[in-house]
Amino acid sequence: MIRIAIVGMGLIGTALGIALRTVDSKTSPLGAIEVLGFDANQDHLKEARARLAIDKMATSLADALNGAHLVILAVPALAMQDVLKAIAPLLAPGAVVTDVTSTKADVTRWAEEILPAANPFVGGHPMAGREQSGPKAAVHDLFKNAVYCLCPRLSTPPEAIALCEAMVEAVGAKAYFIDPVEHDAYVAGISHLPFVMATMLVHVTTQANSWREMSALAAGGYRDTTRLASGDVTMHRDIMMTNRDSLVRWIDVMVSELSDLKKVVQDGNQDAITNYLTTAKQARDEWLTQKPGMRPGEAEYEDLGVGTVERPSLFGRRSTRR
Amino acid sequence: MIRIAIVGMGLIGTALGIALRTVDSKTSPLGAIEVLGFDANQDHLKEARARLAIDKMATSLADALNGAHLVILAVPALAMQDVLKAIAPLLAPGAVVTDVTSTKADVTRWAEEILPAANPFVGGHPMAGREQSGPKAAVHDLFKNAVYCLCPRLSTPPEAIALCEAMVEAVGAKAYFIDPVEHDAYVAGISHLPFVMATMLVHVTTQANSWREMSALAAGGYRDTTRLASGDVTMHRDIMMTNRDSLVRWIDVMVSELSDLKKVVQDGNQDAITNYLTTAKQARDEWLTQKPGMRPGEAEYEDLGVGTVERPSLFGRRSTRR
Repeated sequence: MIRIAIVGMGLIGTALGIALRTVDSKTSPLGAIEVLGFDANQDHLKEARARLAIDKMATSLADALNGAHLVILAVPALAMQDVLKAIAPLLAPGAVVTDVTSTKADVTRWAEEILPAANPFVGGHPMAGREQSGPKAAVHDLFKNAVYCLCPRLSTPPEAIALCEAMVEAVGAKAYFIDPVEHDAYVAGISHLPFVMATMLVHVTTQANSWREMSALAAGGYRDTTRLASGDVTMHRDIMMTNRDSLVRWIDVMVSELSDLKKVVQDGNQDAITNYLTTAKQARDEWLTQKPGMRPGEAEYEDLGVGTVERPSLFGRRSTRR
Repeated sequence: MIRIAIVGMGLIGTALGIALRTVDSKTSPLGAIEVLGFDANQDHLKEARARLAIDKMATSLADALNGAHLVILAVPALAMQDVLKAIAPLLAPGAVVTDVTSTKADVTRWAEEILPAANPFVGGHPMAGREQSGPKAAVHDLFKNAVYCLCPRLSTPPEAIALCEAMVEAVGAKAYFIDPVEHDAYVAGISHLPFVMATMLVHVTTQANSWREMSALAAGGYRDTTRLASGDVTMHRDIMMTNRDSLVRWIDVMVSELSDLKKVVQDGNQDAITNYLTTAKQARDEWLTQKPGMRPGEAEYEDLGVGTVERPSLFGRRSTRR
């Protein structure tokens, strides 16, 4: 029996709990589990329990962490320092700590500074979400086939990594191991820049004098392109605060790109415009269709040629792994 | 019996044909209709016929326009000048011409220059589309409840406007009357800028050195924000060529906005970031929820207080209009 404590019953914490408790203990890499939940917000905690995301509502952080083998911190990035300080004296010896925040470099540094040496930290980031937030938005299959980044350090004990990987697989996701700093640089482009641009599109249009007239014409294209602007403000703020350097680099890239495009449009350079649109369409369509049923990039993992490897599971049982 | 000729059996032309031929002639403001289709591409023409978008495949432009009361040009914007020149000598006396291109100022000017004075032009632009193109992508309800811009001039005969409005209503859309130049300025913000930004997002990310690594992490947010980049290249190119001034203005706005945001992010100005995200989220959520079941802006049309107006239909029958 593995005891898992989830701290923070928002969208991700609750969805992780639901996914963990839905899994068949006979086939799960974690085996039988017990999930304890804690949230300072009692409404969130009760909602998570009502949605069967947790076996038990912990009455305090200490109650949640008591005997927990794995602690999942599902709180906003800028709350992480305080939460790490609060849990540090309460962790069971050897308990592994992971999190779900969208940036990994700052959080990993904080964890290394704050947590006892006997409590390994493996930063995590499931590449899944919804623009709604809170436990009510949690769905059981949020992580199904999602890429789930795990960001251990070279010094992280293999058992701690394996435990987090087993949790990731238990919720139906695929572990993707990546360095915390590289993680932040990459997601800045494909996740943070998109929500910043979505937010900016909403700003420039809704603050225009003619928004009342324009809004009557806005349709599905506007809706989809700006969807991320309806996302959770705290999460997005914390991302912007903890991934500033990468974001600033991308903003510079966009300004330079806009200047180039402005010239092409002003000149009415039809060939250049055609080429610009064609290249982007091909690149996106390729990304979409690279491998049916797989996310782009995953194909490489299929072809590693390692065959079937049998290796001991975390807790003495043996599992067959691809 | 009204004869309608559709020139160009792409996505929009075919979907218009399907919608027109699906309508009940007893309740339609157009009454009984016959739809002729023409496309230089025989595959498109046959596909449109196979999808029951047209009653008859015209063998030539002259065949299509022979006796047509309403001619719908469903061709790309930059093809409009040639098509207008080709149809000008073939139009039946009094035949009304409309189009479906995404920009209206240039096209309206060309029509006025090229068409005979006896053939009124009413520019049209249905605010509906798909990122797939061609007749195969056409669906019968593409225009259901969509806003459909009609851009007559002060000099346009009322009967010509009424005929186009009846066509718009017959396909299930709502006519929105707007000046061609104002139309182009407004859609630049809520339609053209979004697809340009989507295209640019794809460019800057897929051309980055780390795209191979990044692409493995790109998920639903990236997919939705960039959806419009997979749109029809010819349509988007023609939009960029025929709405250059408005687009350049919006590019300048984006550059200025990016510079402001860069400073806020560099400074780590948490309050400013929170405010930026909150304002955009509220504005977008307000747009989405302004009026359940209605597009934003339409609420104003409900409250005009004109009550039920009975007026003669185009062809002698009387229809009850809100």
